[in-house]
Amino acid sequence: MKLIGYFRSGASYRVRIGLNLKGVSVEHAFRHLRKGEHKAADYLAVNPQGLVPALILDDGETLTQSLAILDWIDETWPQPPLLPKDPVRRAKVRAFALAIACDVHPVQNLGVLNKLKAYGLDEAKANQWAKEVNYDGLAACEKLLAGEQGPFCFGAQPTLADICLIPQLANAHRFGADLSGFKRILEVEAACKAHPAFAAAAPEKQPDAE
Amino acid sequence: MKLIGYFRSGASYRVRIGLNLKGVSVEHAFRHLRKGEHKAADYLAVNPQGLVPALILDDGETLTQSLAILDWIDETWPQPPLLPKDPVRRAKVRAFALAIACDVHPVQNLGVLNKLKAYGLDEAKANQWAKEVNYDGLAACEKLLAGEQGPFCFGAQPTLADICLIPQLANAHRFGADLSGFKRILEVEAACKAHPAFAAAAPEKQPDAE
Repeated sequence: MKLIGYFRSGASYRVRIGLNLKGVSVEHAFRHLRKGEHKAADYLAVNPQGLVPALILDDGETLTQSLAILDWIDETWPQPPLLPKDPVRRAKVRAFALAIACDVHPVQNLGVLNKLKAYGLDEAKANQWAKEVNYDGLAACEKLLAGEQGPFCFGAQPTLADICLIPQLANAHRFGADLSGFKRILEVEAACKAHPAFAAAAPEKQPDAE
Repeated sequence: MKLIGYFRSGASYRVRIGLNLKGVSVEHAFRHLRKGEHKAADYLAVNPQGLVPALILDDGETLTQSLAILDWIDETWPQPPLLPKDPVRRAKVRAFALAIACDVHPVQNLGVLNKLKAYGLDEAKANQWAKEVNYDGLAACEKLLAGEQGPFCFGAQPTLADICLIPQLANAHRFGADLSGFKRILEVEAACKAHPAFAAAAPEKQPDAE
């Protein structure tokens, strides 16, 4: 299998963590987002959305959308599970992951920031937008973790929630969002930093890191 | 069970379709988004994200995030399934649903349009933004359906893909996106319009419709 990603793409980072948690090795290929390589014709033929990551399976099938890829990974290699067994707990973990994947990440990604600039916002305003989206989104996420014992988002083992949270925190830090009031999130971040599957997936450890 | 929604919320619309497909009845309650009722303290106590829908289970548990709710519904009432059995086909259906739920819907929802106005865009520019996001996103979705025979997105029965597509089309029409070139999407729309589960979930059929 081959994962086409970008070191700083939060969605690629999620899939890297998921593969590491399962102990599954893949070939890595890269598209440089800031150079627009994900919008080149040869990549649009792979993924018409022009987004990374894409996972090319051994039979040539292409999977896209990080959460769909992670569900496929979890179905294909069930251990260790990325979701709890209890249906309501599964729904809570999924809701947390989606709160990031739907309501934070897409509203502050490179495409939206470029679009804001095309609509007349300057660089500082676009960065302020991204900082606010991260802060507000993570403030809600902190509340979704109220009452959870940790050390990970939803218990003693990492789940899809942690897989989505950690890449988002990288963005939140980059945009200067003040996370010091988010006690549970910072605990989760510390637990994940100490976990080899998360550590090896970090952007700065990737071959295409700058 | 009680579904807290809003007639025009695309995410609420998705859950209504899913419940209808399963033949599951729930009590309906409403939060008026344009009046900001989803940001009231009593609703933030239900869902800290301040978003609809929320599904209140009979034991008092609250589920949020439409796609997490739909997965829970599909796990709780397996027939008819909302996803194919084959893992790769499941991943394709999920990817299509996420292409809308992550990359179109959140970038043109009421919260983002209000934020654009707070950053200085006028009403016309904000509507142009929403129209472009719908057009560009659905253009990619049309390509994701290439080679599929229909009449629904991924075959003879509706799936999670159709559940996400139809509410997005309501927005796309509202913002004036020209979908006339999207042949497969228009075929799916026609098939869903003729399906009672989709028809009964339409915004204009809801008790809170204006």
